[in-house]
Amino acid sequence: MAGNTFGQLFRISTFGESHGTAIGVILDGCPAQLPIDLEFIQSELDKRRPGQSKITTQRKESDTVQILSGTFDGKSTGTPIAMLIPNEDQRSKDYSHNTDVYRPSHADYTYDAKYGIRDHRGGGRSSARETAARVAAGAIAKLLLKHYGIEIFAHVSAVGKINAPNLEQLPVEELLTTREENIVRCADPATAKQMVDCIDAIRKDGDTIGGKVSCIIRNCPVGLGEPVFDKLHADLGKAMLSINAVHGFEYGSGFSGSEMRGSEHNDVFIAGSNTPKTLTNFSGGIQGGISNGMEINFTVAFKPVATIMHNQQTINAAGEAAEIKGKGRHDPCVVPRAVVIVEAMAALVLADHLLRNKTSKLD
Amino acid sequence: MAGNTFGQLFRISTFGESHGTAIGVILDGCPAQLPIDLEFIQSELDKRRPGQSKITTQRKESDTVQILSGTFDGKSTGTPIAMLIPNEDQRSKDYSHNTDVYRPSHADYTYDAKYGIRDHRGGGRSSARETAARVAAGAIAKLLLKHYGIEIFAHVSAVGKINAPNLEQLPVEELLTTREENIVRCADPATAKQMVDCIDAIRKDGDTIGGKVSCIIRNCPVGLGEPVFDKLHADLGKAMLSINAVHGFEYGSGFSGSEMRGSEHNDVFIAGSNTPKTLTNFSGGIQGGISNGMEINFTVAFKPVATIMHNQQTINAAGEAAEIKGKGRHDPCVVPRAVVIVEAMAALVLADHLLRNKTSKLD
Amino acid sequence: MAGNTFGQLFRISTFGESHGTAIGVILDGCPAQLPIDLEFIQSELDKRRPGQSKITTQRKESDTVQILSGTFDGKSTGTPIAMLIPNEDQRSKDYSHNTDVYRPSHADYTYDAKYGIRDHRGGGRSSARETAARVAAGAIAKLLLKHYGIEIFAHVSAVGKINAPNLEQLPVEELLTTREENIVRCADPATAKQMVDCIDAIRKDGDTIGGKVSCIIRNCPVGLGEPVFDKLHADLGKAMLSINAVHGFEYGSGFSGSEMRGSEHNDVFIAGSNTPKTLTNFSGGIQGGISNGMEINFTVAFKPVATIMHNQQTINAAGEAAEIKGKGRHDPCVVPRAVVIVEAMAALVLADHLLRNKTSKLD
Amino acid sequence: MAGNTFGQLFRISTFGESHGTAIGVILDGCPAQLPIDLEFIQSELDKRRPGQSKITTQRKESDTVQILSGTFDGKSTGTPIAMLIPNEDQRSKDYSHNTDVYRPSHADYTYDAKYGIRDHRGGGRSSARETAARVAAGAIAKLLLKHYGIEIFAHVSAVGKINAPNLEQLPVEELLTTREENIVRCADPATAKQMVDCIDAIRKDGDTIGGKVSCIIRNCPVGLGEPVFDKLHADLGKAMLSINAVHGFEYGSGFSGSEMRGSEHNDVFIAGSNTPKTLTNFSGGIQGGISNGMEINFTVAFKPVATIMHNQQTINAAGEAAEIKGKGRHDPCVVPRAVVIVEAMAALVLADHLLRNKTSKLD
Repeated sequence: MAGNTFGQLFRISTFGESHGTAIGVILDGCPAQLPIDLEFIQSELDKRRPGQSKITTQRKESDTVQILSGTFDGKSTGTPIAMLIPNEDQRSKDYSHNTDVYRPSHADYTYDAKYGIRDHRGGGRSSARETAARVAAGAIAKLLLKHYGIEIFAHVSAVGKINAPNLEQLPVEELLTTREENIVRCADPATAKQMVDCIDAIRKDGDTIGGKVSCIIRNCPVGLGEPVFDKLHADLGKAMLSINAVHGFEYGSGFSGSEMRGSEHNDVFIAGSNTPKTLTNFSGGIQGGISNGMEINFTVAFKPVATIMHNQQTINAAGEAAEIKGKGRHDPCVVPRAVVIVEAMAALVLADHLLRNKTSKLD
Repeated sequence: MAGNTFGQLFRISTFGESHGTAIGVILDGCPAQLPIDLEFIQSELDKRRPGQSKITTQRKESDTVQILSGTFDGKSTGTPIAMLIPNEDQRSKDYSHNTDVYRPSHADYTYDAKYGIRDHRGGGRSSARETAARVAAGAIAKLLLKHYGIEIFAHVSAVGKINAPNLEQLPVEELLTTREENIVRCADPATAKQMVDCIDAIRKDGDTIGGKVSCIIRNCPVGLGEPVFDKLHADLGKAMLSINAVHGFEYGSGFSGSEMRGSEHNDVFIAGSNTPKTLTNFSGGIQGGISNGMEINFTVAFKPVATIMHNQQTINAAGEAAEIKGKGRHDPCVVPRAVVIVEAMAALVLADHLLRNKTSKLD
Repeated sequence: MAGNTFGQLFRISTFGESHGTAIGVILDGCPAQLPIDLEFIQSELDKRRPGQSKITTQRKESDTVQILSGTFDGKSTGTPIAMLIPNEDQRSKDYSHNTDVYRPSHADYTYDAKYGIRDHRGGGRSSARETAARVAAGAIAKLLLKHYGIEIFAHVSAVGKINAPNLEQLPVEELLTTREENIVRCADPATAKQMVDCIDAIRKDGDTIGGKVSCIIRNCPVGLGEPVFDKLHADLGKAMLSINAVHGFEYGSGFSGSEMRGSEHNDVFIAGSNTPKTLTNFSGGIQGGISNGMEINFTVAFKPVATIMHNQQTINAAGEAAEIKGKGRHDPCVVPRAVVIVEAMAALVLADHLLRNKTSKLD
Repeated sequence: MAGNTFGQLFRISTFGESHGTAIGVILDGCPAQLPIDLEFIQSELDKRRPGQSKITTQRKESDTVQILSGTFDGKSTGTPIAMLIPNEDQRSKDYSHNTDVYRPSHADYTYDAKYGIRDHRGGGRSSARETAARVAAGAIAKLLLKHYGIEIFAHVSAVGKINAPNLEQLPVEELLTTREENIVRCADPATAKQMVDCIDAIRKDGDTIGGKVSCIIRNCPVGLGEPVFDKLHADLGKAMLSINAVHGFEYGSGFSGSEMRGSEHNDVFIAGSNTPKTLTNFSGGIQGGISNGMEINFTVAFKPVATIMHNQQTINAAGEAAEIKGKGRHDPCVVPRAVVIVEAMAALVLADHLLRNKTSKLD
């Protein structure tokens, strides 16, 4: 079973290679009557598209999305919503010098071994360009969540060893504004400044750097997540790990929780409130795999981009030594453009579980 | 869609509550003709069962597994393999004092909110007892992987702040022997000693502590994993995050990879070998979501067990203040019993992707 | 992907061979809080079990069902409901003479070819005994449908060339009573008499005969069925064709509809009623794959049972001529016992689509 | 779970409305390295497209297909193959007079009830136009089957009460040629003449007529089909019943088999052949749900098209009486264009089961 489909009830299937005609997505299962705001979808894509600032790749793509089906008079009809994003700047000539070599830490070798086909024009399906289709579908997921009052916000919480302080409890609207005021998309302006400087220096070195994106979800209803395999955080984790370059996921107390004692980690309930709330939130808003109404939070670790501007020793398909030249266009750090991808995947998971939860008990 | 099924082609569905008649699993999709070694399955369960040492819960369960279907003359027949594990020591009276209260950082509240039913006999479906069914099915997955020469090994790599050194490149057989020589299941004897002492002290405090389990997979064929959503590490991540108490997952360079530069993180190919190998393995054996033939490695973070022997303030279903008494039986640290669960889930993911890869190209 | 699972949201997985320890089923996705009436489930199984009359096989099975999980205080909890039916009268010795031969029009050869394993004890997984598990799960589906007022009724509409007249518009309760007053389960007493005589004569000949089962569904809400592949009648058709010995399915005007003109076949709406009704019902209650609120009706054709009491020429696994003796126990006509299986499968399809429809539009 | 996806391993998702921008399909799971013959795909679409003869609708659509992804140098790459078919002749003005009325025996009412949205431009998603996407994907399935030597052939076996004689055992190539020599697509020339005359007369009446399509599959390997729910004929049946206007499906002896005795219906094996063959083929090439190597055959019943050129009484959305005018373009009989749709769906089922069978036993 091929793996280009995500979600059970709110389900997307993406297609398209970085150097083909177009990429796109079919979203099946969106409830009818949801207002589909094309401008909003495009604005989300604009946050992911290349060439938006000096610290992103200079590939030129307007990433203009077209809706081919599934809407009528500006609303979803219940039928599949197909969206298409033409590729404009394939420039596969940039890659013609790499026809026969395997780029280090790319997917060239593994795709060739798996499929017995080498599409030397570039990353093809393994390119992060595929995530534009996710962002388009994720934008519709966000519209659905908005209908239910659920808010999602992500930002860059680390670039290399530069870490942002924990987010204050500001409204999502405000966090979003602050984040978009800098090109690295960190909601803490002082840290953002350091991050931009760091990435710019790395870029001038022809090198790349890793980073982290952190995400919060507010106003999530209690009860989302399905025991036992489709726990909410397990599906969030899979969603995040399916994004290019992600090497780690943690939620709530995360890795640091493994160093804690139960007596300090347990989230004590506050008596007397209308709906149960807890004093602390080491559970990250999820208990037993099911949302508990507290803020959901998680962090995603991205490795540094593999394409660097240095010459590198490598091998060709015959296993012989070869050299790969540091040409082409690339991102010195992937996290500023990944913020909206993280949000999109989170929105897709939430939308799916929101629908799945509609049949948890008799009505 | 309820979430009690895992895997696409090698697929398990588990059932059963901690305080019901029995738990069990149906494994569908196991290829015919695989020798099914019941003793091996039982020996795997023995590594997970309660009461096996002073640092595990004292609940008495033999966890004796019966195969109800799907085998003939000791081999799989291609039909569903159903396995049953009766519950012997339900002792729900231990929980009778907690009928109406929500235990902190358990799933009592979220299950009640989701389903509108409070089964006050205990954790029910959210109990880690469910994982026994996974271990039974995972044992058959291991038998399938063994047929193809694939090896899986996990051990306790951290208890609280006590971390084991990185595993040496010893044979899996040897690592396994060393690991089983101590009750904490760490393959480094010196660290194991410290870990046991730590857990024992925590236990005497009536408290609990978190930890980590690390896993390696050797001799994995090149090509396992499906772009783009069902990347091998994304499915491993989901599998691990679906285990009770897991709060984090990382593979290859993991979270520390987010602090590295591309020029140091790229895994350079070694020229001249028969099948491509890399000098370093920051990719953790997976590139573009597909196994590359190098050792696969990942680490799983477990939070401390929520059941502690202290009295705790909490609330009841009406939201009123209540106290929960520190009674019952519990694990002071979950990782020694979790080692075999991590291996089982890894085996299930690998077995599934092994079968899925059979149709990646024309034969 | 193995095929032992049916349904998307209300989903069953069955297991077990006719000559193994037990058969059973896991039902996942049943909404919480549904009263689970064990006596009703057993009474449904009693209608399918062998040995119930002179015109069914004399194999002795009480088909006593046990619920292993998923209920508490008589209600569903939202977790998987596992049910077990032990095999009591395996008598595999009856089959010991057939170890090496392929019985004509059975699945002996195809299973052997597919799996490379010959379980010579009997039909194994291809035995209609498997359908007991479906009846148990279907009984719970009926309880869910009853909660929503939906009624299902099937009866034997043909044995060989003896056809029952079309059902009158009697209440389901009344039809059910009439049907259960004869051992062939036809709701028309006069026809039932002829059918019983026919089957009895066939039985004395050591032969078997085919037949048909017709089913109606009343009070089905408008809107069930998913375009375009999961049309309600497409899922009903698959459900029926998955029952042993079924060779045909038609709904509404069925095969005779292919001889009609549009001007006579179109179901004209009746003006002025609260909810749209049609004068005729050639559409069989389903338009565009979606229920329209009219009575749903369909008919299922069963071939004659392959096991006959005559000696038959056949071959063994080496392809050599062999003779198969007319021994063992068998049903001279499968339809009297199939009535409840047809109802069970219909109920499972309806329950699934009822849940699937919960997310068709925004609430 | 929305129902726009078909297949497990060889899986298609279709999208698009009859009066939107385009329709299309994503095919996921096609093994890499399959030659993708675009001309062949187009030639298949040409057999389905409107306006091809005097007995089909005069809607003008060239149905020109574009491949957007998933191929390189003329071969499949293992990634999703997306295909797009623009709509050229929407002419929604033809439907502007029907804005508010429900056409009899169409899906207008049921879609409106299910989704709460009335797209009055025409059939939208319920239009048979959607099947063009299936034909495009089915053409690739045929290419895969051809690689394994499997042949599929369908033709019109009945129009109204005019039935073609059973097909002789001619080569598929020859049957195909004969079929394409007449516009009704019946492989018996004498019957074809009668059928064309019948349809032409019906057309002049402004009426429509039903019919049947019969299909054979040759050289199907033994072993395709998955017990117990995904029997090969159950999946074929669902595939056929999902085609617009289909009201019945039978395979092998079909409905007439229900009138037979076991002693005449059993297919006796022929001793001494290399691979088991049977004297008769009442089983239709499938036993226990698994192909047995004999010719697979089945028949599909189509109701008459609901759009007729007569004025008809009906109701509007308020339930009031209304009249619908006999305008627009329509097919007087759907079967000539349905032949290639039946083949396409059969090919999709076979391709899926071919891949699914790759893991039935250890290799």
